[in-house]
Amino acid sequence: MNTNSIGAVSTQSFTFAEDEPFCLESGETLRPVALAYETYGALNADRSNAILICHALSGSAHAAGYLDGDPEKVGWWEETIGPGKAFDTDRFFVICSNVIGSCYGSTGPASIDPATEQPYGLHFPVVTVGDMVRAQVRLIDHLGIDKLLCVAGGSMGGMQVLEWAAHHPQRLHAAMPIATTAHHSPMLIAFSEVGRQAIYADPAWNHGAYYDQPRKPDAGLAVARMVGHITYLSEESMHLKFGRRLQGLEKYGYEFETEFEIESYLKYNGLKFTQRFDANSYLYVTKAMDYFDLTQPTGSLAAAFAASTEVRFLVISFTSDWLYPSYHSKQLVSALTAAGVDVTYLDVKSSWGHDAFLLEVETMTNLLGSFLDRLVREEQVPAPVGYAPRARFVPGVNTALPRTKLADNLA
Amino acid sequence: MNTNSIGAVSTQSFTFAEDEPFCLESGETLRPVALAYETYGALNADRSNAILICHALSGSAHAAGYLDGDPEKVGWWEETIGPGKAFDTDRFFVICSNVIGSCYGSTGPASIDPATEQPYGLHFPVVTVGDMVRAQVRLIDHLGIDKLLCVAGGSMGGMQVLEWAAHHPQRLHAAMPIATTAHHSPMLIAFSEVGRQAIYADPAWNHGAYYDQPRKPDAGLAVARMVGHITYLSEESMHLKFGRRLQGLEKYGYEFETEFEIESYLKYNGLKFTQRFDANSYLYVTKAMDYFDLTQPTGSLAAAFAASTEVRFLVISFTSDWLYPSYHSKQLVSALTAAGVDVTYLDVKSSWGHDAFLLEVETMTNLLGSFLDRLVREEQVPAPVGYAPRARFVPGVNTALPRTKLADNLA
Repeated sequence: MNTNSIGAVSTQSFTFAEDEPFCLESGETLRPVALAYETYGALNADRSNAILICHALSGSAHAAGYLDGDPEKVGWWEETIGPGKAFDTDRFFVICSNVIGSCYGSTGPASIDPATEQPYGLHFPVVTVGDMVRAQVRLIDHLGIDKLLCVAGGSMGGMQVLEWAAHHPQRLHAAMPIATTAHHSPMLIAFSEVGRQAIYADPAWNHGAYYDQPRKPDAGLAVARMVGHITYLSEESMHLKFGRRLQGLEKYGYEFETEFEIESYLKYNGLKFTQRFDANSYLYVTKAMDYFDLTQPTGSLAAAFAASTEVRFLVISFTSDWLYPSYHSKQLVSALTAAGVDVTYLDVKSSWGHDAFLLEVETMTNLLGSFLDRLVREEQVPAPVGYAPRARFVPGVNTALPRTKLADNLA
Repeated sequence: MNTNSIGAVSTQSFTFAEDEPFCLESGETLRPVALAYETYGALNADRSNAILICHALSGSAHAAGYLDGDPEKVGWWEETIGPGKAFDTDRFFVICSNVIGSCYGSTGPASIDPATEQPYGLHFPVVTVGDMVRAQVRLIDHLGIDKLLCVAGGSMGGMQVLEWAAHHPQRLHAAMPIATTAHHSPMLIAFSEVGRQAIYADPAWNHGAYYDQPRKPDAGLAVARMVGHITYLSEESMHLKFGRRLQGLEKYGYEFETEFEIESYLKYNGLKFTQRFDANSYLYVTKAMDYFDLTQPTGSLAAAFAASTEVRFLVISFTSDWLYPSYHSKQLVSALTAAGVDVTYLDVKSSWGHDAFLLEVETMTNLLGSFLDRLVREEQVPAPVGYAPRARFVPGVNTALPRTKLADNLA
């Protein structure tokens, strides 16, 4: 754990009122709906210092600090959220909630279907990024926050940020979409679909009905995750981290064992993922990402932001990110500019691929921190009680470590 | 089928002499060894007009014409091999053989192990690109050809070309490595390994012992192939071919069916592949590709070509090929130049990704054809009996067709 940690935290849960049905984009209704969430720092007097953090594909509400009683369970964005860090918990009230469809405490396919009293499995309705965000709006209402100072997130978290800005613009002052896109390209859909097909191909998946079975579709889920991990790295970072080095071998073994370090990395991460994520949630969350498309229904991305002219944007991409390449962010910036939105954009030079949004901590801290300083000034956001300014803190990141050691559930 | 086809062809088989054991790089000995091969055109009087074509991962000896009795079974490089085409079968004697380890008639894991009288399965020894090429050398000896005019191939075919030039330089005048590399980068190994892991994950794989079982590891093999197909395309070609279009749907179905065209393409190709390829062969051939590394044992790629100064090279890469990116070819060209080798290099502008080496027929025909014209002139290669020159022929290719319709077994 870094110094300047928020320390011990605990995940909370918010269940929607029974008399307020939650209607999904598909037309179906979901009930009951629970959201797992965490908060760090304190609200100020006029409740104007709240920042919502949105997580990526396999993330959770546990974004910072460590889980009470388990110092090993460090939050997925610990480097960026904490006292003196980019999202300064001395200054801001930071919220992170687990998306619906996921498996970290929010309602998803592993939850109990009240109609059958069994886990939903594939009977869980397909949810969208729009649905995820409308659920977050209810949480923000519940927390008594009228307008968020900022919504921020990378990858699928960035899609949620864009959804907030496009469809709930009156509820936020600023948006920070990072390493993301306004819609998946066919290549992104293709990678999602291969992951899903790997799960479908596992007989233990059993069309989603495996919760009461002795075996889970771990083999298929591991393959899906391995595909994902390839896309999170860059050619350059793979050369730096692994090259063609063999794992504890002097020469080829001429057999089908794990030999190259990159093979070991993939296998380790695939296996580790099955210990923490639900295969059906992988299907639902990737499907939501594939469906997300802010150019619809008009065909114009600029039109999606027609009502967002009061929202200030900080858009960040990374030069070696080939999963969400910079041109996606540049198209977004063009559309925002065309819509008359105030947008700051930076294409950060990095060799870390999509993972850069986790690893380029110093650059990110300075970028996000400066942008938030400006917001605080321009919106005249009062500090919470007892606030004492301190120098900005940039945690170190050991990029030589396996990704999972750095942050287990970021992307 | 194109016009200017070589027409009906049949695959032949060559079995190595029993008293000449075939020793592998691993130290193991393989016996018996059979190679499936095809030839097109006629040898000239001094046997100097022979060209060897090397196939890619899932290719076969059937490179041109159609299989006798089945006009649907068109060769995988039909656009490039035939009367008047780049590899002009009026002018040259063209040979293509299936690699050992594969499943199209050459000895591989599905062959009968004489020790057990059962299919080898995983008892088949691991073979290398070096082994594949030394087997081809025996075939060329058998055909009575002292020196090939040229060895040509794309992708894994290109690796074989490089192996020929580096380790058997006295046996060829010219080498045409296309869309290939002198060694797999960690990203290429990663994609190979994910394909293998998808096969291992299929319970029907049964550690390679499935030949007498009712089920084959088709599900795993299909996933492996889907991953492959993503890497054969480019972002741009995916946008052109599929975009975010739905397959026969007006709007999202909110269910886990094939919805996007790209999903349908992957699923179709994955399934189709299981009808023609052996999962164990997929393991062996991808392993050979991962092991291939011409920088070893010296660490210098230039050193690999120290004895190749009499071999003339035509190196071709494609700008949108991200599986074997142009920088691999550029490194190769640098090494060849450093070794004092005569090399012509072209980085062809194309949007078709790795598939470009199949689809850029006009460019390829002109490039390969001109290079061969020069060879014929400089080596004073006599024409075969009855040769009458004709204008070069460039077949059309309908790039709107699914890849499998174009060439089922190229990459």
